[in-house]
Amino acid sequence: MTHPAPLVDIWRGDLLESQHTGHAVICDDTGQIVDAWGDPDAVIFPRSSCKMVQALPLIESGAADAFGLSDEHLALACASHQGAAIHTDRVSRWLDDLDLGDADLRCGPQAPADRDAKHAMIRAHDTPCQIHNNCSGKHAGFLTLTKHLKAGPEYVDIDHPVQVACKDTFEKLTAVNSLTFGIDGCSAPNFSTTVHGLARAMAFFAAARGGDTRSDAAQRLVQAMTRFPELVAGETRACTELMRAMGGKVAIKTGAEGVFIAILPEKKIGVALKIIDGATRASEAAIAAILARLGALDADHPAARKRLFGPITNWRGIETGHIRTDAFTKS
Amino acid sequence: MTHPAPLVDIWRGDLLESQHTGHAVICDDTGQIVDAWGDPDAVIFPRSSCKMVQALPLIESGAADAFGLSDEHLALACASHQGAAIHTDRVSRWLDDLDLGDADLRCGPQAPADRDAKHAMIRAHDTPCQIHNNCSGKHAGFLTLTKHLKAGPEYVDIDHPVQVACKDTFEKLTAVNSLTFGIDGCSAPNFSTTVHGLARAMAFFAAARGGDTRSDAAQRLVQAMTRFPELVAGETRACTELMRAMGGKVAIKTGAEGVFIAILPEKKIGVALKIIDGATRASEAAIAAILARLGALDADHPAARKRLFGPITNWRGIETGHIRTDAFTKS
Repeated sequence: MTHPAPLVDIWRGDLLESQHTGHAVICDDTGQIVDAWGDPDAVIFPRSSCKMVQALPLIESGAADAFGLSDEHLALACASHQGAAIHTDRVSRWLDDLDLGDADLRCGPQAPADRDAKHAMIRAHDTPCQIHNNCSGKHAGFLTLTKHLKAGPEYVDIDHPVQVACKDTFEKLTAVNSLTFGIDGCSAPNFSTTVHGLARAMAFFAAARGGDTRSDAAQRLVQAMTRFPELVAGETRACTELMRAMGGKVAIKTGAEGVFIAILPEKKIGVALKIIDGATRASEAAIAAILARLGALDADHPAARKRLFGPITNWRGIETGHIRTDAFTKS
Repeated sequence: MTHPAPLVDIWRGDLLESQHTGHAVICDDTGQIVDAWGDPDAVIFPRSSCKMVQALPLIESGAADAFGLSDEHLALACASHQGAAIHTDRVSRWLDDLDLGDADLRCGPQAPADRDAKHAMIRAHDTPCQIHNNCSGKHAGFLTLTKHLKAGPEYVDIDHPVQVACKDTFEKLTAVNSLTFGIDGCSAPNFSTTVHGLARAMAFFAAARGGDTRSDAAQRLVQAMTRFPELVAGETRACTELMRAMGGKVAIKTGAEGVFIAILPEKKIGVALKIIDGATRASEAAIAAILARLGALDADHPAARKRLFGPITNWRGIETGHIRTDAFTKS
């Protein structure tokens, strides 16, 4: 087994204070590795980074069209949103349209990460509902497919038709037989794959030009994510800010425990990475560095610079350190 | 250079999802290494883990007695508190007693981490003051020493008598010449040392039995920390809960970027560790595992088990994973 590679350095003054290691793969649409760091065959859980794969059966089954889902719905199905009003209002209406409600969700209640929504909830002495959960859009998608299939209400069970379809799709796109699954933060099964497998799935999305059911669906999801970056995460968040910085040409998605993916349609390239220790600050820096290396992201754009360099500041606003991603700089 | 050692594993289902590496040293009062993982000579910033060292000049100078400081004041001087009323009320009174106020602090404003204090502040549409900063007790100590020395108000400047005294004390106790310093989150200088050096300083505190000015001061600080664990951090926090679980026999202190120390007076042993990626979940697990290994902490105590094992649960309260610290289990 190849060891994880040092990917992201955290400096304070002139001392390397902390360091993040990981695995990263850039893959073309034939499944070939274009570039890799660490071990491409490392087995990981993709976590929320693969929500667009989990949304494919929603479209391929005909459910999305049967229920008239728009690109906004599809962007939310691929989202880890922060529970802002723009997210929860849409998910509420979506559930209404299905004649369902918050109690039909199985993602669990989560306090919004969005500052305004969080403060409003605290001031009103409210408690969060399941629609506030960052995965509520994915779950609304699961419920749409469940209704379309006339399946039972426990749609996160491993043998429920929705999850069977998700697993089958995931294994086909990654070209890896999933060795195991974990229960995700939102209670849905999350299937293991390799970093290479995840990058290969993203290259499929990148190369999708329509012409068959799966390719149509993949293209539509990428379009939904890039058209509505604010629905995929939210203000101040990396997915939203970096997708905006790339002018809608690239779809990216974060996952818990240090996973990040990118879909580059112009280059027909997919990217996947995993930070071994699970740190978000490092997965954000690493994906920004890879996107800059690929010429898709301007490293001097403020949204890029914030992730690639920092600066790290303290409670008085004094610059105390910075981030470095030399591992991804072309020599 | 020795590589960092795998110290803390994060499992989801039956997959090792994430892993934290680091350096750890258990040291006796002669400076000898009793046990070590990774590289004892790795250079680190101790961050807030060395606040008891920064508090020594406060006592040794005579300032603490001149201003009538109690063990509660001294516990706060060693604290990274969470801005609860029990912390901020005491720091406010302390500043009053010095005829000083919030504006004399140089730590910067930080929102309280304490849930009640944070919610009250949001409901009142208040903004945090400097007394809410987790380091405000340390800074009240700096101001006390500043006043005693009749020094200037910029007490976090590197050449201010307070910081000169801190550096001198730190280098003597660690037996390491500090190679560099960083600016900490609270704007005070933080001097580099080795993991071994930091453990050696903690062994000095552990072995302090009084008899001279420095030993008296060290013993008094350990007593203050172990008598008032709730002032050193706060409810639900690792330092507070684990010190309580050990019945006041051991002092422990966290530092940013994955540092943790322990002082074991009964064994005259000091511990220091640094998680390479800076993760708090890992530094807490590692210090709990070392304390259990040393027989100071009951691994089955709920406060210990929470850090050593978890379980990791999701938004519906379902157990999705757990923590492992096999690296510290005696073979």
